[in-house]
Amino acid sequence: VEGVHWDPQEARPEQIGAKAVNRNLSDMAAMGLEPRWLLVSAAIPAGTSESVLHEIVLSMQAAAGRFNASLVGGDTSRSPGPLVLDVAVIGPLGSCQPVTRSGAKPGDRILVTGEFGGSALGKHLDFTPRVREGVFLNQHYRPSAMIDVSDGLERDLCRILDASQVGAILEGSCIPVAEAATRLAQRTGKDAIEHALRDGEDFELLFTLSPERARSLLAAADRFFSVTDVGEIGADRARLLRWEGREIPLQGEGFDHQF
Amino acid sequence: VEGVHWDPQEARPEQIGAKAVNRNLSDMAAMGLEPRWLLVSAAIPAGTSESVLHEIVLSMQAAAGRFNASLVGGDTSRSPGPLVLDVAVIGPLGSCQPVTRSGAKPGDRILVTGEFGGSALGKHLDFTPRVREGVFLNQHYRPSAMIDVSDGLERDLCRILDASQVGAILEGSCIPVAEAATRLAQRTGKDAIEHALRDGEDFELLFTLSPERARSLLAAADRFFSVTDVGEIGADRARLLRWEGREIPLQGEGFDHQF
Repeated sequence: VEGVHWDPQEARPEQIGAKAVNRNLSDMAAMGLEPRWLLVSAAIPAGTSESVLHEIVLSMQAAAGRFNASLVGGDTSRSPGPLVLDVAVIGPLGSCQPVTRSGAKPGDRILVTGEFGGSALGKHLDFTPRVREGVFLNQHYRPSAMIDVSDGLERDLCRILDASQVGAILEGSCIPVAEAATRLAQRTGKDAIEHALRDGEDFELLFTLSPERARSLLAAADRFFSVTDVGEIGADRARLLRWEGREIPLQGEGFDHQF
Repeated sequence: VEGVHWDPQEARPEQIGAKAVNRNLSDMAAMGLEPRWLLVSAAIPAGTSESVLHEIVLSMQAAAGRFNASLVGGDTSRSPGPLVLDVAVIGPLGSCQPVTRSGAKPGDRILVTGEFGGSALGKHLDFTPRVREGVFLNQHYRPSAMIDVSDGLERDLCRILDASQVGAILEGSCIPVAEAATRLAQRTGKDAIEHALRDGEDFELLFTLSPERARSLLAAADRFFSVTDVGEIGADRARLLRWEGREIPLQGEGFDHQF
C-alpha cells in the first residue's frame, strides 16, 4: 500500500514491485514451502504512467522468477486513493508439511537467520526473502515453529509463544544487530539493540529447534547462510529478555508499517 | 474498492462483502469452473469499526459457502485511502477444461443468461453469480467462448470477438432488457436498450454455441434458468447491432466502474 509499505518519494517502481512480491515470498519461506504461482491485483490511481506500471510488473516477474515462481493471474481496478498491490502466493506441498507457529517446546533453542534492525534505512525495499533457507530448514531440520520477522523480532517471537503456549528467554547479547540499526540509533538516540528488537521488516526467519538439531544446524549451515542461536523456549510462560544482567519482560507490542 | 465498486453512503457492510466475493465467483463461472478456495486481502482505513469488518467477513463466508467454497487465507493492511478488498479464487479443474473467450466460430449463436441494464439501481450489490449455470454449460454444452458481463454486454461481446478474431450481428430486439433498465431510462432520457447494452455489472453469462447445441440448450434449459439467443457470430469481421431496421457498428468502448 502506497504510503504504508513504501514512500512514493523514496521508492523506485522496481523496488515497489519487488517488495510486494518478496514480502509474500517471505511468508511462504516462513512455512518452509516453495512458492510456485502468484496472483497479483492492483488498484491504480488515475494518472499512474504506463511505464511505471510496466516497471512494477517486470520487477514482480523478476522477483518471482528468482525462485522459479510465476505470475499467473490477478485483477486491476482504478483507485481513488493510493496505489494498492495485493499478491497471493500458491505453492505445492510436495513431500513437505507447512511449518506453523504453534509447535515450539520447552527446551527448544530459538534461532534466527541474518541480522536485525534499521530496515527502514533501505533493506525493507531491497531484501532477499529467505525462501531457500526456509525450504532447506523444513526439509532437513523440521523446525518446531517458524515465522518471518516482518513486525519486529520481539513481537514476532511473541506470536510463536502465543501460538505454542510457551515462554522464552531471549539473550539480548546474542541478537545479530545490523549495521543499519547502529546507524539508525545514532539518529534516534535509542540503543541499537532496541532497533534490532522492535524495528519491522527484517524479513528474516525466526524458528525453534530441539537443542540437538540446533547444534547440528549451527555446525552445518553457517557455510551457506547466517544462523544465530538467540535464546531458549522456557518451561514456564515467562517471556524475558536478558540484557546487561537484567531480565526485562518481552513486549508483544506492535510495529506499525510505515515505510 | 470503496468509491469505485460501491458507494459508502449506499452499500451496507454485508453487501460490500457479498459483492467482493460474488464478482470473483462470476469470473470463475465465466470459465465454467467450480470455485473452491478464496484468499481475501483487505487494506483498511483507520477508524473502520470492528463490527463493520465482522459483517463484511461473515457475508464473504456466506457468499462463498453458497457454492461450497471457503475463505482459506489472505492478508490485512491499513489503508491511508479507501477500503480495498481483493479476492483471489482457486478451484480444481476436475474433469473440466476452462472455457476461454477465444473459441467463437462463424455461425455460432450468441446467448446470454438473465437480463441486462440498470444494475446500478441495486442489482450490482445483490446478485447471484452464475456459477451453477457456468459449470452446467461447460459440462453439458461446452461453449466455444464465454465471458461474464461486468463491463456491459456490448463491450464484453467485443472482448470475445477480439479474442476469437471474428465478427457478430447482435439482434437488439432479442436482448432481454431488465425492468431496472427501463426505470433508469426514464431518469436518463436514454433508450432502455442503451442501458442494456452499455451498463456494467450485470454479472450474467455471455457465451457462444454451435446452432445445434444452442437449439438443444434452448429446448432443455429454460426450465432451470433464463437463456436467450441474441445473435450470431459472423463469417466476416463486421460487428453490428441490428436495431429498428438499421445496422449500427458495435462499440468496444468502456464501462467505468463507479457504483
